[in-house]
Amino acid sequence: MNPLAVALGDPAGIGPEIVAKAWAARAARNLAPFFAVGDARSIGAVWDGPTIRISQPEDAATHFADALPVIEVEDAGEIVPGKPNMPGARCSLDSLELAAGLARSGAAGGLVTGPVSKAQLYSVGFVHPGQTEFVAERCGVGADNVAMMLAGPTLRTVPVTTHVALRDVPELLTIELILSKIRTTERGLVRNFGIAHPRLALAGLNPHAGEQGALGREEIEIIAPAVELARAEGIDIVGPLPADTMFHARARARYDAAICLYHDQALIPLKALHFDEGVNLTLGLPIVRTAPDHGTAFEIAGKNVADPGAMIAAIELAALCAANRARS
Amino acid sequence: MNPLAVALGDPAGIGPEIVAKAWAARAARNLAPFFAVGDARSIGAVWDGPTIRISQPEDAATHFADALPVIEVEDAGEIVPGKPNMPGARCSLDSLELAAGLARSGAAGGLVTGPVSKAQLYSVGFVHPGQTEFVAERCGVGADNVAMMLAGPTLRTVPVTTHVALRDVPELLTIELILSKIRTTERGLVRNFGIAHPRLALAGLNPHAGEQGALGREEIEIIAPAVELARAEGIDIVGPLPADTMFHARARARYDAAICLYHDQALIPLKALHFDEGVNLTLGLPIVRTAPDHGTAFEIAGKNVADPGAMIAAIELAALCAANRARS
Repeated sequence: MNPLAVALGDPAGIGPEIVAKAWAARAARNLAPFFAVGDARSIGAVWDGPTIRISQPEDAATHFADALPVIEVEDAGEIVPGKPNMPGARCSLDSLELAAGLARSGAAGGLVTGPVSKAQLYSVGFVHPGQTEFVAERCGVGADNVAMMLAGPTLRTVPVTTHVALRDVPELLTIELILSKIRTTERGLVRNFGIAHPRLALAGLNPHAGEQGALGREEIEIIAPAVELARAEGIDIVGPLPADTMFHARARARYDAAICLYHDQALIPLKALHFDEGVNLTLGLPIVRTAPDHGTAFEIAGKNVADPGAMIAAIELAALCAANRARS
Repeated sequence: MNPLAVALGDPAGIGPEIVAKAWAARAARNLAPFFAVGDARSIGAVWDGPTIRISQPEDAATHFADALPVIEVEDAGEIVPGKPNMPGARCSLDSLELAAGLARSGAAGGLVTGPVSKAQLYSVGFVHPGQTEFVAERCGVGADNVAMMLAGPTLRTVPVTTHVALRDVPELLTIELILSKIRTTERGLVRNFGIAHPRLALAGLNPHAGEQGALGREEIEIIAPAVELARAEGIDIVGPLPADTMFHARARARYDAAICLYHDQALIPLKALHFDEGVNLTLGLPIVRTAPDHGTAFEIAGKNVADPGAMIAAIELAALCAANRARS
């Protein structure tokens, strides 16, 4: 497997610090070789370990034991941890684009993206809802055909709708959309996790999954029909299940991924159980792409207190998925 | 403290079994004296331990060490575990009414309610959404002035709306309703848990608590104003917080109760973390009322596999709340 490309994210956020700390844990965690993509000064501003500038991904493996390899992008302007600015936002976007391109070409074995500030990105003309949609476009895949999986040690969830107001969720749910996410999730579990016959569970929208229509009709009219169609395609899926009773330990043992209908339905259980190790994995792409499931945390940037757990988990999962894909 | 009244719930459900198992654990768990209210035959059908019929709650303490005290209600007809019928539903309703009355009069120190089948209760003319509303009415308290708290060892949540379709939630949320639940929760923590200065956290409705309006306006127009009014009354409350990042261990340590806006927002984290020990506690009543946070589980009734953990936790919490109230 070729080294992984790790975009540093916003140079004023905690991205540079947690990537450096992940490299420092390379032996303890037996991490596969990776290289950072971004402005090396953003690492130097928060960490005094060794870095080495490389120009080709393949050089990362040679140096990985001794220094954190960095593929340099443009000057990010003045870098002050915790103080984002427009040059930094542009740098984070260029880093993302370069790292994604290296993964798309195969020169990098996969893509890990550090946290960016959407508000900052919008100020420099970014038009996508997030990094996921940007990467999908660069890979030539429509946003409807990718799915966001949140993965922790004992739970994987996939939200059908993501960053929309809760009141808009019921109208956005269609049989076609749910079925599309079911298919993407099933294929994603086969390709990335090497699970030959994935078991899926689908949440209901309403309390108690609607209680046979007494507490809402979406289960009857939209969700159950999507499950029927998926089963007819041979997909092993149960649901709609009452969302509140599907995330305890015994329930989680019954499926490989839970498909949820809205952002918080997927994110609440994942972060309640696995806050410091949640990984965002994009399914449906020709490349492996993961990210730590947290933000830039500008308020603690530069204080050497950021927990690299989720970044390490994102690097580990990217390596695992890349290895599983190579085998299949 | 007077003995607790424990209504057995539906005689064909797991209620009789878990109440009997709770009594069997009285020494190991150092449980305060309680007595069952229902048809003693429903216990005999699933358990071969000793029961003793009593006619006054005060007799329970005398016999509690040696046998499970039972205050008998009407004949439940034919009792077959797992097979609910109308006489059984009537019996569960009579048991609830008698147990609630004993708590209301003070003869019982508090009320614990076993699981009932709403579908069965509706078939015998029950008109309330659930046992909570029935008990509130019997106590002369309007349903809007009580709140349902779900309590586990490391988390307490209170949903502002409960058994309604998700699409109806945004319209049901008003500043007044949220403020009412905040007040009831704060007073409930003082009275029942002996917390002098409760710390509350209020969830947002939308992803990331609306991202300053980009993902929904309810936080700005309804939720934040309710928080402002509560603070003006001296209540220690923060929010609206992004719901997905408020339930991990470090976040939970910052508040005594999380107020949530809809059923699954409150129940998903509670049951993900504390499935076998979740207790439903009704706040705002003149009496203590708790219940195990699960249903009748007809499918496992009579098989001696039901876990009494939540019933034991409900009995323990009722005793704790009654003691705290007696002290204040």
